[in-house]
Amino acid sequence: MKPCELTLADASEAIAAGELSPLELTASVLERADAVDGHLNAYATLAADAALHAAARAQEDIAAGRYRGPLHGIPVALKDLVDAAGLPTTASSRVRAHHMAATDATVTARLREAGAIVLGKTHTHEFAYGLITPQTRNAWAPDRVAGGSSGGSAVAVASGGATFALGTDTGGSIRVPAALNGVVGLKPTYDLVPRHGVVPLSWSLDHVGPITRTVRDAQPVLAALTDCQQGPGALQTTTAGLTGIRVGVPRTYYFDHVTPEVEAAVRTALTHLRELGADLVDVDIPMTEYIHAVHWGLMVPEATAYHEPTLRSSSHLYGPDVRVLLEAGREVPAGDYLRAQRARTLMRASWGRLFDEVDAIAAPTVPTTATRAGQDRIEWPDGTTETVSDAYVRLSVPANITGMPSLSFPVGLDTAGLPIGMQLIGPPSAEATLLRMGRAYEDARGVLPLPAVHAS
Amino acid sequence: MKPCELTLADASEAIAAGELSPLELTASVLERADAVDGHLNAYATLAADAALHAAARAQEDIAAGRYRGPLHGIPVALKDLVDAAGLPTTASSRVRAHHMAATDATVTARLREAGAIVLGKTHTHEFAYGLITPQTRNAWAPDRVAGGSSGGSAVAVASGGATFALGTDTGGSIRVPAALNGVVGLKPTYDLVPRHGVVPLSWSLDHVGPITRTVRDAQPVLAALTDCQQGPGALQTTTAGLTGIRVGVPRTYYFDHVTPEVEAAVRTALTHLRELGADLVDVDIPMTEYIHAVHWGLMVPEATAYHEPTLRSSSHLYGPDVRVLLEAGREVPAGDYLRAQRARTLMRASWGRLFDEVDAIAAPTVPTTATRAGQDRIEWPDGTTETVSDAYVRLSVPANITGMPSLSFPVGLDTAGLPIGMQLIGPPSAEATLLRMGRAYEDARGVLPLPAVHAS
Repeated sequence: MKPCELTLADASEAIAAGELSPLELTASVLERADAVDGHLNAYATLAADAALHAAARAQEDIAAGRYRGPLHGIPVALKDLVDAAGLPTTASSRVRAHHMAATDATVTARLREAGAIVLGKTHTHEFAYGLITPQTRNAWAPDRVAGGSSGGSAVAVASGGATFALGTDTGGSIRVPAALNGVVGLKPTYDLVPRHGVVPLSWSLDHVGPITRTVRDAQPVLAALTDCQQGPGALQTTTAGLTGIRVGVPRTYYFDHVTPEVEAAVRTALTHLRELGADLVDVDIPMTEYIHAVHWGLMVPEATAYHEPTLRSSSHLYGPDVRVLLEAGREVPAGDYLRAQRARTLMRASWGRLFDEVDAIAAPTVPTTATRAGQDRIEWPDGTTETVSDAYVRLSVPANITGMPSLSFPVGLDTAGLPIGMQLIGPPSAEATLLRMGRAYEDARGVLPLPAVHAS
Repeated sequence: MKPCELTLADASEAIAAGELSPLELTASVLERADAVDGHLNAYATLAADAALHAAARAQEDIAAGRYRGPLHGIPVALKDLVDAAGLPTTASSRVRAHHMAATDATVTARLREAGAIVLGKTHTHEFAYGLITPQTRNAWAPDRVAGGSSGGSAVAVASGGATFALGTDTGGSIRVPAALNGVVGLKPTYDLVPRHGVVPLSWSLDHVGPITRTVRDAQPVLAALTDCQQGPGALQTTTAGLTGIRVGVPRTYYFDHVTPEVEAAVRTALTHLRELGADLVDVDIPMTEYIHAVHWGLMVPEATAYHEPTLRSSSHLYGPDVRVLLEAGREVPAGDYLRAQRARTLMRASWGRLFDEVDAIAAPTVPTTATRAGQDRIEWPDGTTETVSDAYVRLSVPANITGMPSLSFPVGLDTAGLPIGMQLIGPPSAEATLLRMGRAYEDARGVLPLPAVHAS
């Protein structure tokens, strides 16, 4: 196994044991990224020299006994909304083609402080305003969408072109590409991870979080992002079953308009959680008829408010899909926005009551695996259709509206060989519970292999 | 002195000592209200029979040893936005001409629980959407405005037609009429006093609070509204000077476009606070250029959101000034509202830092005493003009935007014999400090007499 194929945890253990050097690991990851990226186009910017330089310094530090913990010497890719000093933050948009970040985002600084090696910046759907990332290919099937908006981050991790990555998630943008590329995405509780230095899409829905190969890998990244102290021993923590954990299984919403293969995989995963000791409890999801309107009512005007100056000066530089959305945001009346805010308050409260009954809710992350590039709509057996973006955001956005943490991890492949994701949603600050549950599943069921490499 | 002319504290002491009965007090207050109200028009509804019945029951309870505390047997007038079971809540609007409240607002229930006697409902500027209350006359000068929107409550208290009253305050609607009628108004910290059962104007700016003759009187009313337990001894608490209290004196904003007489009275009051031991500290008020836009950006769309159904069905029933404002609210873009919300967050934070330096900020409540009825605009010596409403709201609304408590009390009369008000603004939950300061001033300087009675 090449170093680039190691999980974060395995690479970290090898580094801590002196069996692998940060330089070997970084060089291997860069080599893989270089080999596949002409084909996959996960990266907007690769900063190979700076990464190798940082890896050499990490190697010296570790050799000199200054080991910083589980991220020391581990290569990370940053979604190209996250500032890293000396690199452009293009947001994959011509609007920011000439951008250069003078300082690190808070999360970048925290990762560097923890010893991580910044590889470069990964493609996003332009300004994170979409669920596709059309310029990037799915790591499992080149004719399929990467998902978005953190498509580059998920594809980089899934292809071995980064040991882990950061994404952002406004309606599902960490979890959707994680699910479609067979990796793990964690959208933390709202405001747990600082957004300073990260280009916003919709500040009341935006979250920064990790994309990793495994659930186990997500834990040390979250700890670094939240500036929690932890020693190298943190990775050794394992879980002993899920006895006493109550898992809510939605009777409504989350299994409507979901493909049979996705539904079967998630329900099978639920039986595995039960075998691990969890109790399955049927729950009704509240206020589902408001989800779509609240999401759009909040996101569209907030996005436009941020972009208004550039929209006025250089609207021709935006891609047509994003420009239309931004211009539409000018027409939203204040009444719609404030009604969306009020409905969100009620949704938070009613979801909060759900968590009196259960510790987490389990559901598909997305209703279908990766669609073909260029496909606009999905038709369901009952004859209804929806856009691909609407379908991909539908099951993930409730956790953005309510601010509750959600962890997506792979629970199998469909018959086309495409990954299927399941999410666990918990009450605010329940990240440890979600990670424990995902970890128990993963320890029992194993992780997906990396997809075959299609070098360019 | 007639019982109706007693302050709440004096009436309460007399009742507790058995020297005055609730029935005598209520009858005296009703007689005064009846004598003056044809002239002043403070009341929308007087419920004399119910009040006398409740007073008789209070008398029995007290005689039987079931004394409830300082509000027991004290007559109160409720602004006609506050539900009282069995009485209409008209909001002084034809829109609600046929309204009848089935249950008490939370504040009404709490006052009744404390033993207060509900006299009736007082006039408001229609739906609290104005600073004038045109149908009501100033208690000190019949050709002058009462101020608003709680004009009826302030005039009832100032004229002896109620021992105390409740008002609501979205931009100054408790403090403005209190100042213009020479009584005391307290806008508590946002969300300290429950608004359930009170017709909203703009929920993120609305507050319910007491209007009383004296600062001393405000304390037991606030305690009842916040459901604090207190014995009859609470009224006996006095203050021993203001040593160590730091009073911020605004260098900016609060003394701009203020009449010389108002400024002189407030600056004189400041010297009295210093004589009582307070330290005067110059402060700069932050973000003053945002106040007007934030106030309108929040209030106008929130008001329209509440009224939208009625506006659609019966817009002809609204007065022209309120209808225009409500219709304008439909045109506010979401961007303006969300920018106002964001600016409010920043204003709260920057005001919060002010209170690292001082315990309270002292300022005029309104820039001028009561204007003549029908006067539309105020011209300042530099040639600028503003509407009367804009002038009256200008100095009071920062405390609504930031949610900070503000206490207005009289600090003298101008040469026309009209009352001048000063406000003390504190950080969230600093009501006790503000009341202590106002009480010290009042104990040292005395209270205004009641204005001459102009019976109808």
